[in-house]
Amino acid sequence: MEVDTEIRARWVLPVAPDETVALPHYSVIVNDARILDVLPSQEASEKYSPKELVDRSKSIVLPGLINAHTHSGMSIMRGRADDQPLLEWLHNIWPIEGAVACEEEFCEDGALLAAAEMIRGGVTCFSDMYFFPDAGAKAAIRAGMRAVIGIVFLMFPSGYAASLEDYLRKGEEIRKHFKDEPLIHFTYAPHAPYTVPPSTWMQLKALSKENSVPIHTHLHETKDECTSSRVLDRTNPACHLSDEMCHPLEDLNRKGILGPNFVGAHMVHLTDEEIDICAEKGVHVAHCPTSNAKLASGFCRIDKLLRAGVNVALGTDSACSNNSLDMIAEMKMAALVAKNVAGDPTVMPAYMALRMATINGAKAFGIDHITGSLEVGKSADLISIDIETHPGNFPVYDPHSAVVYAASREDVEDVMIAGKFVLKEKTHCTLDLHDVLRRADYWRTRINKQFPLN
Amino acid sequence: MEVDTEIRARWVLPVAPDETVALPHYSVIVNDARILDVLPSQEASEKYSPKELVDRSKSIVLPGLINAHTHSGMSIMRGRADDQPLLEWLHNIWPIEGAVACEEEFCEDGALLAAAEMIRGGVTCFSDMYFFPDAGAKAAIRAGMRAVIGIVFLMFPSGYAASLEDYLRKGEEIRKHFKDEPLIHFTYAPHAPYTVPPSTWMQLKALSKENSVPIHTHLHETKDECTSSRVLDRTNPACHLSDEMCHPLEDLNRKGILGPNFVGAHMVHLTDEEIDICAEKGVHVAHCPTSNAKLASGFCRIDKLLRAGVNVALGTDSACSNNSLDMIAEMKMAALVAKNVAGDPTVMPAYMALRMATINGAKAFGIDHITGSLEVGKSADLISIDIETHPGNFPVYDPHSAVVYAASREDVEDVMIAGKFVLKEKTHCTLDLHDVLRRADYWRTRINKQFPLN
Repeated sequence: MEVDTEIRARWVLPVAPDETVALPHYSVIVNDARILDVLPSQEASEKYSPKELVDRSKSIVLPGLINAHTHSGMSIMRGRADDQPLLEWLHNIWPIEGAVACEEEFCEDGALLAAAEMIRGGVTCFSDMYFFPDAGAKAAIRAGMRAVIGIVFLMFPSGYAASLEDYLRKGEEIRKHFKDEPLIHFTYAPHAPYTVPPSTWMQLKALSKENSVPIHTHLHETKDECTSSRVLDRTNPACHLSDEMCHPLEDLNRKGILGPNFVGAHMVHLTDEEIDICAEKGVHVAHCPTSNAKLASGFCRIDKLLRAGVNVALGTDSACSNNSLDMIAEMKMAALVAKNVAGDPTVMPAYMALRMATINGAKAFGIDHITGSLEVGKSADLISIDIETHPGNFPVYDPHSAVVYAASREDVEDVMIAGKFVLKEKTHCTLDLHDVLRRADYWRTRINKQFPLN
Repeated sequence: MEVDTEIRARWVLPVAPDETVALPHYSVIVNDARILDVLPSQEASEKYSPKELVDRSKSIVLPGLINAHTHSGMSIMRGRADDQPLLEWLHNIWPIEGAVACEEEFCEDGALLAAAEMIRGGVTCFSDMYFFPDAGAKAAIRAGMRAVIGIVFLMFPSGYAASLEDYLRKGEEIRKHFKDEPLIHFTYAPHAPYTVPPSTWMQLKALSKENSVPIHTHLHETKDECTSSRVLDRTNPACHLSDEMCHPLEDLNRKGILGPNFVGAHMVHLTDEEIDICAEKGVHVAHCPTSNAKLASGFCRIDKLLRAGVNVALGTDSACSNNSLDMIAEMKMAALVAKNVAGDPTVMPAYMALRMATINGAKAFGIDHITGSLEVGKSADLISIDIETHPGNFPVYDPHSAVVYAASREDVEDVMIAGKFVLKEKTHCTLDLHDVLRRADYWRTRINKQFPLN
């Protein structure tokens, strides 16, 4: 049978249905943008005649990584205000955002830079949350990436929208505008319980149900957010806007907002009872261990969440708090932190970290029937990682370990999304990298001019 | 004046004397294997006529990284037994070591693989500790790397030595043999207080003083080591061999072993009083945050150590517990963990992480008059990091942040040691990488044959 592409791998890691499986000397058959078959390479050569045979028989082929939480537009501010306490950080970043993020072009150029970085690091899908959601969508389409675009809400006016009604109106327009784009998905993305009032939460609850669009928000990121909300200490900017004296998660639960259509980003500070509530309601967690550490927000108890049965996805957060959108590094970080917090080296084995970075992300955003694993019928969203060139990857005993604990972003050689290569042999196929960097440099120069560094 | 080499950089980060300094558009002048000058590039072109001008005017030039704690010979077992509890890990690794690490060639091939990986990642000097210390020394010489070779001691016989006397005799022979090698330095490296008896510690104390060779050992790595030693619970394999009922650090202090010639690797579990003792005695710490996390040993309180004034160096530990010898990733990990453990994002700013990975390592091993910073008169041990090619490094506001939080091992373009390039434009100059990988694969095959994976 003639097919579009055969990718012949040293190992295929399908991730689902069994995340522990490593298939040696297997091929992935891609036809019409989908995965047609996953079978031993020897059988593949008898059964299929590919128009293109991509020989990766020294590499590991796996599902594309899904960055479950990022703010792509912020990439241009990468490293602008590091190692600062939160308030000082805000005083540095907010004026810059006020000066440049009111321009859609800034957000799109930032999203393009983010897309280029993520593609280079094996990310095929990212869940985005920033001003001008259409900028993220446009950048994703230009890059050929799958994206889950957050329709943002903030009680503050911004260069993007003037009021909560305006955020909603513009967001719904964007959603309609991109509704036929096959790689674009959406979430309602209220920034946080301390920046979005109860009335908007209730409105989004109804819209989420009506339009089958998940809700994605920052939740329980800092201890302050919990302690101040419990006593309604309005002098604390992290205190939720509800009138209930309780943790924000409890408030959202009482409002009937928690469910399988809800993704909480960070979720660092959860009591045992709250972890049980998450499990019971089918809430998803977008875990961002590097960002949590860099901002000293605390260590998320992933072991507890996993044992309770909560679906945990993995995200990098923005380039301002990471400073990389590097999901390979994030997998290692997630595994390391989970083990040390639990005091148990068996917690989060490599295959589990990979699962969090792939199928769990797809599940969180309700697109696991489309992407997140190498299963027949799913979109051909896949990557190959070269483990034979860099001495730091050598030798390989277990391909899951090699990917999570040894590989680096630079070992990603191919990235295919919906059957199309967006990176091939480490070269971009969809983006003009030179132009992307030139655009970012234009903004850097402008920012440095307006806000000189000491 | 005619000189050997000028390296023209976008930024030079000299690290010492002031670790916060970033010199824009500076050049490093190398002559006769040493740093002759660090000056603005414009002045350099008037003052010097270099035989070779290396234009890195889009890169960051900084001191070579110093890996303060590794076991290079173990690299061939990278990823062989991950995500296992300690006892299971030992039951998997020890028989393999018993079968292959009794061959000096295995240790040398492992050290060569480690050297290749470290050079690619900008490491110019590593402190090694493994069987057949001469294997590490030979590999370093072949690679053109600086190395601090640990003369190992264990109360158990091994393929390398039959008894404590044998370890000492062989070690001293090796030390004499390599005494005129300019890049080879030594430590006495008793494995740990629970594997080396008090009599040997006292012997090494005298030898260390007599020969001006520092002592480098694993110390307070696990909680078990402290709690079992305090009650002399000999059923616990981590209980020290002293008859004193106290923590191992306290015992070594009573024995007069702690001092500026002492490097404790790990030091995860230290009381406030013990941190003060370390500061008072001038003890150095070789901090290995990734290994500590992967083995779930605990989080080292680096903030407390730094504030007490302890010199903290940085190491990767072995490829069995990391699984990379990637000091760029280790700097980021160290900064992240220090911040989150302290609950303060200002702890360990990027320049401090870089300091730990360079001059502090040199100080720990008493070679800071030779290497660890870009200062006039020191050995030309330096690297350049390309921050203009990968979108994940872009844009750059602060070069320290760029190196620590954004760069990856693959962005290292040049590595110079004692004035000689060992990596140039990402290509090895001293090692035949193909041959290094081929040798590692030979051992992998042999190990898999003798100890089949399930």
